[in-house]
Amino acid sequence: MPKVTIKTDKKSYELPAENGQNLLELLRNSNIEVDSACNGNGTCGKCKVKISSGMLPAASQNEMKILGIKAVEEGYRLSCGCKVEADMEIILRDTGAQAQIVVEGRQRQITLSPLVTKEVRTLEKPSLSDQTADFERVLGGLDADGSSLELIRVLPGLIRQNNYMITLIKSGNRLLGVEAGNTAKTLYGVAVDIGTTTAAVYLLDMNSSKRVGVHSFLNPQKTFGADVISRIQHTNDNDKGLEELHLLITGKLNDCIKELCQEAGISNKEVYAVTFAGNTTMIHFLLKVPAKNIAAAPFIPAVTSVLKINVKELNFDINPFGIACILPSVSAYIGADTVGAVLSTGMYRQAEMSLMIDIGTNGEIVLGNRDGLYACSSAAGPAFEGANIRNGMGSVSGAINSITLEAGVRYTTIGNARPVGICGTGIVDGVAQLLKAGIIDETGRLDTGWEPDSEQLAGLAENIMTIEGMNVFVLEGDIAISQKDIRELQNAKAAIAAGIHILVGQAGISFEDIKNVYLAGGFGTYLNIGSAIRIGLIPAELQGKIQSVGNAAGQGAIEALLSSESLSDAVIISKKIRYIELSASKEFNDCYVDCMMFE
Amino acid sequence: MPKVTIKTDKKSYELPAENGQNLLELLRNSNIEVDSACNGNGTCGKCKVKISSGMLPAASQNEMKILGIKAVEEGYRLSCGCKVEADMEIILRDTGAQAQIVVEGRQRQITLSPLVTKEVRTLEKPSLSDQTADFERVLGGLDADGSSLELIRVLPGLIRQNNYMITLIKSGNRLLGVEAGNTAKTLYGVAVDIGTTTAAVYLLDMNSSKRVGVHSFLNPQKTFGADVISRIQHTNDNDKGLEELHLLITGKLNDCIKELCQEAGISNKEVYAVTFAGNTTMIHFLLKVPAKNIAAAPFIPAVTSVLKINVKELNFDINPFGIACILPSVSAYIGADTVGAVLSTGMYRQAEMSLMIDIGTNGEIVLGNRDGLYACSSAAGPAFEGANIRNGMGSVSGAINSITLEAGVRYTTIGNARPVGICGTGIVDGVAQLLKAGIIDETGRLDTGWEPDSEQLAGLAENIMTIEGMNVFVLEGDIAISQKDIRELQNAKAAIAAGIHILVGQAGISFEDIKNVYLAGGFGTYLNIGSAIRIGLIPAELQGKIQSVGNAAGQGAIEALLSSESLSDAVIISKKIRYIELSASKEFNDCYVDCMMFE
Repeated sequence: MPKVTIKTDKKSYELPAENGQNLLELLRNSNIEVDSACNGNGTCGKCKVKISSGMLPAASQNEMKILGIKAVEEGYRLSCGCKVEADMEIILRDTGAQAQIVVEGRQRQITLSPLVTKEVRTLEKPSLSDQTADFERVLGGLDADGSSLELIRVLPGLIRQNNYMITLIKSGNRLLGVEAGNTAKTLYGVAVDIGTTTAAVYLLDMNSSKRVGVHSFLNPQKTFGADVISRIQHTNDNDKGLEELHLLITGKLNDCIKELCQEAGISNKEVYAVTFAGNTTMIHFLLKVPAKNIAAAPFIPAVTSVLKINVKELNFDINPFGIACILPSVSAYIGADTVGAVLSTGMYRQAEMSLMIDIGTNGEIVLGNRDGLYACSSAAGPAFEGANIRNGMGSVSGAINSITLEAGVRYTTIGNARPVGICGTGIVDGVAQLLKAGIIDETGRLDTGWEPDSEQLAGLAENIMTIEGMNVFVLEGDIAISQKDIRELQNAKAAIAAGIHILVGQAGISFEDIKNVYLAGGFGTYLNIGSAIRIGLIPAELQGKIQSVGNAAGQGAIEALLSSESLSDAVIISKKIRYIELSASKEFNDCYVDCMMFE
Repeated sequence: MPKVTIKTDKKSYELPAENGQNLLELLRNSNIEVDSACNGNGTCGKCKVKISSGMLPAASQNEMKILGIKAVEEGYRLSCGCKVEADMEIILRDTGAQAQIVVEGRQRQITLSPLVTKEVRTLEKPSLSDQTADFERVLGGLDADGSSLELIRVLPGLIRQNNYMITLIKSGNRLLGVEAGNTAKTLYGVAVDIGTTTAAVYLLDMNSSKRVGVHSFLNPQKTFGADVISRIQHTNDNDKGLEELHLLITGKLNDCIKELCQEAGISNKEVYAVTFAGNTTMIHFLLKVPAKNIAAAPFIPAVTSVLKINVKELNFDINPFGIACILPSVSAYIGADTVGAVLSTGMYRQAEMSLMIDIGTNGEIVLGNRDGLYACSSAAGPAFEGANIRNGMGSVSGAINSITLEAGVRYTTIGNARPVGICGTGIVDGVAQLLKAGIIDETGRLDTGWEPDSEQLAGLAENIMTIEGMNVFVLEGDIAISQKDIRELQNAKAAIAAGIHILVGQAGISFEDIKNVYLAGGFGTYLNIGSAIRIGLIPAELQGKIQSVGNAAGQGAIEALLSSESLSDAVIISKKIRYIELSASKEFNDCYVDCMMFE
């Protein structure tokens, strides 16, 4: 049995392998997070590893093409294409810990009325003249519908343990559980936003609404594909695929909740509720509900309603009387995350019109006010996530995330690390700057014959070159923006811009009527708004009205945890939103083509 | 390892034993039903076995006393006192199959509206212009509260399996489950009455209300005691005791349901609902809910409400979407069986006053009409069950169940078998006849100096004798009614009669106001009403108004299965009944003493 030695920035360890086992499969089975945007199809290059010693397999034609000859010579291979046939040592970049994940959101004023509450009662002692049964004695006027048989089983012991003083655990008028004595002071809850790429987990004291801690992590499901379609495909192709994805996310969430609790010095049994925002596919995986029909027209989810579930049904290791609440969603591509974001922006209560945009592989766009809401989801493709881009990468350490060309090529990187690639905001910045300099024209063509019109820009001409038959603008060393990257960005920005136009048309308003534009999500947080307008991602008419609202979906999950009114509002929002299916719209296609140009 | 060969009327088999293992324990562990009214305390004699070959252990003083010297000489021993230290062969009487268990009840007219219903729907196919999610598409206006996450998980597959034609499984307005295609024609339900001694199980077609089959069995928990107190004691003394009793009854019920289904030629997956009547302790054991506080003052059950539970929570092997419904009860000793009996007699709807009596170890007595109901439970002791009686036995094959002395000693036995003992109705008959003949006086004294006042009775004098210092009246061979038996019966009948008097007093009525007397349960079915009045078990004023209603509790469970109106009525009955706790009543004690005399 050959063994594989794994080296990361932080540690080194060995894995025994079956002879001939696929290296990506081995890493996945060992719960090692490896990017694989294409889910092992050999097309994305994300699963590359450096083989630093031991058997170096011959590189395939495909690997040469994807990785480049230089990388292949340095020992890089695609783990999805490697078989382990002898001992080997590989170097893995430990991406997870250094990812830039936005967890902060804009908080509204809410009235505290948490999803789970406690109430201390001292029961009348039973006697021959009052023989009311234990359960009915505890129940009083409460609703038994949330009570489990397990509660009835433990009740006789619990109520007598502390001389009939008990603490009721309730959700609204439903009795969920009982604890002996007075435990009212401990009442924690967790709010979660599960994105395709990242997840944010908030620990809150539901007695005070105070945030006690927050963690974020890269979605471990990424090893089965960067986008929802690849992951759904994995569940279609493998009998155990859905279970696998379900266990990956619930396992990671359990670990994360446990860490948050340890840091806060509380027990995870003191957590009584978990609320979830997330896109529709992520919610399906969380629930272990088949997402198959989300991936193909007519795009039908299994469930969109708000759900309240006993945590045991989802194997969450919190208080066994606790509940999990899934925010409602609207459709396959307008999920509980969008509903949560609309909730936390408060746009559904305002008289004035607002536009909310959450840009990712799919851009979710919502337009409206208290009288009505329109939403669409526009398939931008993965360019904003740094995928399908020559030197693209996620928002992790070493990614170039902002660029100016005004005094030569200047850039910043995430974590101020040595640059290793470009993330989405970096590409938007770069293209905007190239447009400004005139190096790209309005059709998107990178002009290899460009001549500077000012002294400051003069040096940039040297950065324009042709590599392996492709025109590129070099930022630093090997890192460049290619003609193909510009085309990818044009497609992506056109999709979002066209979505905005369609909704404005549907609502029968003009851009002037829109008073607020909320940019939600990580991309929206770090996006240079001037660049976004320059490339036409956001219509210029909206300039001056745009604000980032951070992780608005996570903030929606927090609100649903802390305020029953907000949770009710989330249900109202999910029913109020009129979803516009763009894939069925000829108008959208025309609009999309119009938006491809850079002005 | 010694082995024990078991011989019954029907079969013979071997059990391997640990060296020194207690024989009763071995039999219990092997799921062999052995009576043990005292739960292995060596006092009831019910667990006796005949050791027919192999090691014959020395008899203890206790065995000589309990079994008699003759039986000990014949090889009888108490299995609770035997250790298995070498191979042995024992003869067990196969009681279960020959028990006389009343399953028939009196049926009221009810409107069919079963606990679970089906509805066939052909859904609109989803399309780009109708992207409603699967669950919401199926739900329509139904209530999702009864739906499990498991339903949502299987739904996407189910609804597409038969081109969007589905059958909804509902309880009221709650969606429980879905099946592909049209399955409306199969809709079975099971109604169960679990008594301390016996249980009755009815299989019904919920589409037609037709009874498809019925089975009954001796409660296998009897191996842990004949009465509820011994069994509760077992759960107090053993950590796994409650689980043990729970598994015994649910295991037996699952077997029974499977057999009923096989006989009816249906699958147990075509059963969608089970309703339960039963006394409060039996219901607690069924639910695996601690019954500890039922056994001691102030007698507090864990739960008395009506419960609807997913069958999976109780491990019932019927349709996984099915539900179990437990009829409500009133108190520790007025259980769901009494509520079911009141339901099926219809007395709660009548203008005239009725009295309902279910006589067993506890006699449950209910008095009232549509304006109000009073109930009490009177601890009659086990005499009516044939326990603590010299030759007493349950209502099984060979038990003397009726006696006349008018032309010498004449009797009948259950199954017309060779007489082996006397059951409860036999003792009532015997004592009534002895009273009539003047052999017993009004104080209950068996007159050894009795002289016949007529030619017909002359021969009876020979049957009066003294055995081992005790006056007895011999019926046949060794079988006799003893002076002690008469005292036991006086206690038992006084408890019931006093209970009736107390309720009549509480209701502020006279016996004349009572228009119907319903005798419920097995004992009431076979009881000679004339004898019952003669011994003062039922007040003479009620003569002419008395009727047996058979297994009225089982009939109540059937009604709750077939009629939602009846189930609602059961809840109303449980709340309407005013329970009179006799153990707290001085009045009851005085009345009890008054009722001891035979007029």
